Amino acid sequence: MKSTRIPRATIQRLAAYVQILETLSQEGEKVISSEGLARACGVNPSQIRKDLAYFGEFGVRGVGYYVQDLLTAIKQSLGIDRIWNVALVGVGNLGRALLRHKILRKRGFMVVGAFDCDPFKIGEEIAGLEVYSSKRLQELAQELNVEIGVITTPPKRAQRAANYLVEAGVKGIVNFAPVRIDVPENVAVEYVDFIHHLFSVAFNISLNLSKGLF
Amino acid sequence: MKSTRIPRATIQRLAAYVQILETLSQEGEKVISSEGLARACGVNPSQIRKDLAYFGEFGVRGVGYYVQDLLTAIKQSLGIDRIWNVALVGVGNLGRALLRHKILRKRGFMVVGAFDCDPFKIGEEIAGLEVYSSKRLQELAQELNVEIGVITTPPKRAQRAANYLVEAGVKGIVNFAPVRIDVPENVAVEYVDFIHHLFSVAFNISLNLSKGLF
Repeated sequence: MKSTRIPRATIQRLAAYVQILETLSQEGEKVISSEGLARACGVNPSQIRKDLAYFGEFGVRGVGYYVQDLLTAIKQSLGIDRIWNVALVGVGNLGRALLRHKILRKRGFMVVGAFDCDPFKIGEEIAGLEVYSSKRLQELAQELNVEIGVITTPPKRAQRAANYLVEAGVKGIVNFAPVRIDVPENVAVEYVDFIHHLFSVAFNISLNLSKGLF
Repeated sequence: MKSTRIPRATIQRLAAYVQILETLSQEGEKVISSEGLARACGVNPSQIRKDLAYFGEFGVRGVGYYVQDLLTAIKQSLGIDRIWNVALVGVGNLGRALLRHKILRKRGFMVVGAFDCDPFKIGEEIAGLEVYSSKRLQELAQELNVEIGVITTPPKRAQRAANYLVEAGVKGIVNFAPVRIDVPENVAVEYVDFIHHLFSVAFNISLNLSKGLF
């Protein structure tokens, strides 16, 4: 990798490339043109060439990219060429859905612990995991080798969940609760807020309506 | 509203402002400083001022913003000052979680129909909604007044779900399946891919580790 300072928007596109390249790899494809990759990812070819320049020379003039080499290079530099252990805090509807979702495991994220503060949920088994009390996070995180925390609590409990995760030494958090959380600067946080996407679609429909596009 | 050409990144931030302003409004707050709003949203004050300039003059020098006026103005221009009717296609774990999630309704998105192609799921009742066959989308969309489609199918069925929605006249789609979908140009599409956020956190942890931050 040429540089570690990869912009945030690039990381998001790289994640999309990984997805497409993995599908191609599974289908036994050896090479893909930058046009083909661009079409599959919904971006333009020059953007792809620019993004992939971070990883050195993978393009072959007149041919395209070697699927497996490119996939390996991107995964290595994103740090996703290995399994990451995840603790999930908040076993409500969304938490349960994530625990049962195959895509986490498939993409290299293994949920090793599920936590909740509701005594009625503690001890329950979901997708092969026993639900533990959130208070036990600090005690169990080392044993379970937790690296990433996923917060799926109601908004009001998200900060407490974040505190438990930080105290347990977790260095990265993906927060699905629709509130900001305060964590030390060396803890990486990402917010997943699907309501933004609904707002955006509603806005674009209104905009298209006002343009008379329908 | 001064302009309808609001950049995509701005829309995402506006959605975050709406969230914070609604909480403040519920708590009875009348005014917020741009610094206060910036802190709550995790952006810098000059960004807020720039974003809010699309909506005219809401700031009061030395005071801040009037919470209710600003909230109303943003919601109006995003087209979210009313209820949008949503059809959800794909009643798996994630689909069920969304059907039961209070936040959709709370933010103005009412799921009026749930659809699946699995005969074992058709007829089931989830969160007060009967699951219909996806084949009936076109027939039921008008009756139910569906405006937005949410796709929560497995990746391989997402395109078919999109086709059903487009044939039913739906003008906006939020796709949770981790694949691109092809739709006519006048149909707004948003992709929700939480794996990107996990990739991003993993990358940032790796980066922090390599910097010796831990």
